[in-house]
Amino acid sequence: MESVTKRLAEFSLEAHDLYLNRSVPYLEGPPDPLQFYRDWIGPNKPCIIRDAFGHWPALSRWTPEYLREKVGSKVISVAVTPNGYADAVSGDRFVMPEERPMSFSSVLDVIEGKVQHSGVLYVQKQCSNLLQELPELTADVDSHVSWMSTALGKSPDAVNFWLGEESAVTSLHKDHYENLYCVISGEKTFILLPPTDRPFIPYGVYQPAVYRQQDDGVFHIVDQSGSEKVPWIPLDPLNPDLDRYPQYRSARPLRCSVKAGEMLYLPALWFHHVQQTHGCIAVNFWYDMEYDIKYNYFQLLETLSEVTAST
Amino acid sequence: MESVTKRLAEFSLEAHDLYLNRSVPYLEGPPDPLQFYRDWIGPNKPCIIRDAFGHWPALSRWTPEYLREKVGSKVISVAVTPNGYADAVSGDRFVMPEERPMSFSSVLDVIEGKVQHSGVLYVQKQCSNLLQELPELTADVDSHVSWMSTALGKSPDAVNFWLGEESAVTSLHKDHYENLYCVISGEKTFILLPPTDRPFIPYGVYQPAVYRQQDDGVFHIVDQSGSEKVPWIPLDPLNPDLDRYPQYRSARPLRCSVKAGEMLYLPALWFHHVQQTHGCIAVNFWYDMEYDIKYNYFQLLETLSEVTAST
Repeated sequence: MESVTKRLAEFSLEAHDLYLNRSVPYLEGPPDPLQFYRDWIGPNKPCIIRDAFGHWPALSRWTPEYLREKVGSKVISVAVTPNGYADAVSGDRFVMPEERPMSFSSVLDVIEGKVQHSGVLYVQKQCSNLLQELPELTADVDSHVSWMSTALGKSPDAVNFWLGEESAVTSLHKDHYENLYCVISGEKTFILLPPTDRPFIPYGVYQPAVYRQQDDGVFHIVDQSGSEKVPWIPLDPLNPDLDRYPQYRSARPLRCSVKAGEMLYLPALWFHHVQQTHGCIAVNFWYDMEYDIKYNYFQLLETLSEVTAST
Repeated sequence: MESVTKRLAEFSLEAHDLYLNRSVPYLEGPPDPLQFYRDWIGPNKPCIIRDAFGHWPALSRWTPEYLREKVGSKVISVAVTPNGYADAVSGDRFVMPEERPMSFSSVLDVIEGKVQHSGVLYVQKQCSNLLQELPELTADVDSHVSWMSTALGKSPDAVNFWLGEESAVTSLHKDHYENLYCVISGEKTFILLPPTDRPFIPYGVYQPAVYRQQDDGVFHIVDQSGSEKVPWIPLDPLNPDLDRYPQYRSARPLRCSVKAGEMLYLPALWFHHVQQTHGCIAVNFWYDMEYDIKYNYFQLLETLSEVTAST
């Protein structure tokens, strides 16, 4: 089994030597669909595309004033946490945010510092919330990314709207989606790890729970009784506990900042951790991934990583 | 280690359940480059394309009479073996054919039964022999497959010409090329195994040797002294020795026949064994494969298959 562990480590290093970039490259403008498929989707490599949505009215329109006027009275679902960590491991639990219905204008009051608020707000509901909760804003963006829809031969499965405070963090995880992440204002900072680094990334299984803020402002953690345990990554890539997770020393995270007007292609199954500037607004498109040979191979890697981690 | 062996077997079965076809599908005509990349090259799946080169003059022109007139006097390299097996394991050796320079018309004399000959002939030199040895015939075919060149963003690395006797066989192996195999006349029969069946395919390392036919017609096997041992597959998929290689019971070979006018897309790293009707003529295009995430994963699979096979 030691030989398998050793081989998994070599394999991850080979990925970096063979085809991965040492930083996230930039494309200067919307790509040709076939070329994008061949150069990025097929090889499962991230890139940042500049000037890819310069024609969206959102880029100039989405000021607090405009948003208050257009959707200020709309009630949206907001993730509320004591520390900015929604969907993250805390102690021996996987803790999800309180999902609080709030008017858009009251969220903006907090973002703009007009109202004091205990807890951290993050509009981050990934249920195609732009289309579901804020249809008044859809005219300000394209309904899909045409070259991506052509490349993949399908429409996006979800279009999500993101708005949050500076301390709102997305903990390290992966999605089963091809992801185009468009920053409208502010800046997002991503830490990215390729699927081939899976052997270095620790997983545990945790009792699911949710934050609940009481009338006195104090957050409590309430177990979701009857729910199955959740596999999640306990490691914080901002401050990795290398004594506890020494294998992470071999991981080779990429860092990138995505600025207003830029679009990150975040390939399916890449691990990612996300931070942002205060009040950063973003829209992302999720396209269903293909459950083909790459997924098949990843599943092998995943179970081998589990087997070797437990020995 | 037993758990790894078990997991590799499950992984191969998952490939068949997830995305592989139970037989090789047909496309009715030349595909769109992007769609072909997305549906076949990306997922690394074979298919047969009908009417893909109906405009090639070769399809109607390449009769024995025409070939004698055009290239009858040209000297080409012919693989000669006692049994039809060129590049195959025999006993404890990897035996390559005698490479004999012959005029094209003398090869046709044998194919047409005009001359008796001991040994089996196969024009199969994969050095772009159509362009190198038979440039007079290149006007009868396209110099590349335009939709494939567009899909891959490159030109073929080699264009090979194939002509052989009925008993000429290509033993089970894989190539580091994306392969388009066009049958001009006759029929080729392929046994195909996906890269994910690698755990079930036995490999050995063998002393390289070549056949040499003596003046009395008898073939001798002559070791290539000083050459490094060659890894090859000793198993014959036409008659697998399941007592010796019991793991092959779990393999799921696909069989397909490619008829005149049809083109097989044989994806990189697929294992293949080839037979043909007597005098079958074919042309194939080799495009360099990408050494990307799929190759990276295959290399992991290869070494894990070796480790588990040796325990």
